[in-house]
Amino acid sequence: MKYLHTMVRVTNLDDSIDFYCNKLGLTLLKRNDYERGRFTLVYLCAPGDDSAQLELTYNWDPETYPMGRAFGHVAYQVEDIYATCEQLRQSGVTINRPPRDGYMAFVRSPDNVSIELLQAGGPLPPCEPWASMPNIGTW
Amino acid sequence: MKYLHTMVRVTNLDDSIDFYCNKLGLTLLKRNDYERGRFTLVYLCAPGDDSAQLELTYNWDPETYPMGRAFGHVAYQVEDIYATCEQLRQSGVTINRPPRDGYMAFVRSPDNVSIELLQAGGPLPPCEPWASMPNIGTW
Repeated sequence: MKYLHTMVRVTNLDDSIDFYCNKLGLTLLKRNDYERGRFTLVYLCAPGDDSAQLELTYNWDPETYPMGRAFGHVAYQVEDIYATCEQLRQSGVTINRPPRDGYMAFVRSPDNVSIELLQAGGPLPPCEPWASMPNIGTW
Repeated sequence: MKYLHTMVRVTNLDDSIDFYCNKLGLTLLKRNDYERGRFTLVYLCAPGDDSAQLELTYNWDPETYPMGRAFGHVAYQVEDIYATCEQLRQSGVTINRPPRDGYMAFVRSPDNVSIELLQAGGPLPPCEPWASMPNIGTW
């Protein structure tokens, strides 16, 4: 038995690929367009690790996707949580839960999927501007 | 960067551990009870592969967890999809999407989380009773 992927539905594929790939730094592994079913599947992974993937489902006919509450988040470990958050912030992504503790941060995708970022190897020393940055919204 | 886990909230920890571990066959890696925050986190993984985990959050104070529609499912590859589905069925789990094609099945957790099962290495030859088994509900 092996974990393959977590699937989330997205309302705009370009916005999602921009967020997950250009801003968060995931790799786009493949994209399959299904003309008959009128949907597209996109598979993403952390760079160099395609064993655990994120599957984006884009239905060509518009729908709304309420987030609900059963699903919580998808979590990724990062090499330098400050660098990752700075890159996200500079690209316009709100850091909902800044890494005040040098360890944990949360952001949201364009469709409101909560993404947890955790520092590899445990907390870094607290560092400004993160240490005194307030939370924004929920995650 | 590395995928760590997908988190889902559960309303009953015993029922969830029974489903995910005893019925689906995941391994319970660790359980942390947080007295102050009044919640418990449980980490599960496919047997022998703790690199990609499922995190269950159990809040001690009851809540309801609507499923929403943004989150789709969590997918696992299995060695023998017929054996896995038979084991699930015998333990009382509804096979919402039976593996008619020898390749793909869907079940749901006690909290309605959709779980996709995919046959390792591609489809097995069609096989009864699965080949003629109808869908039940949605997934």
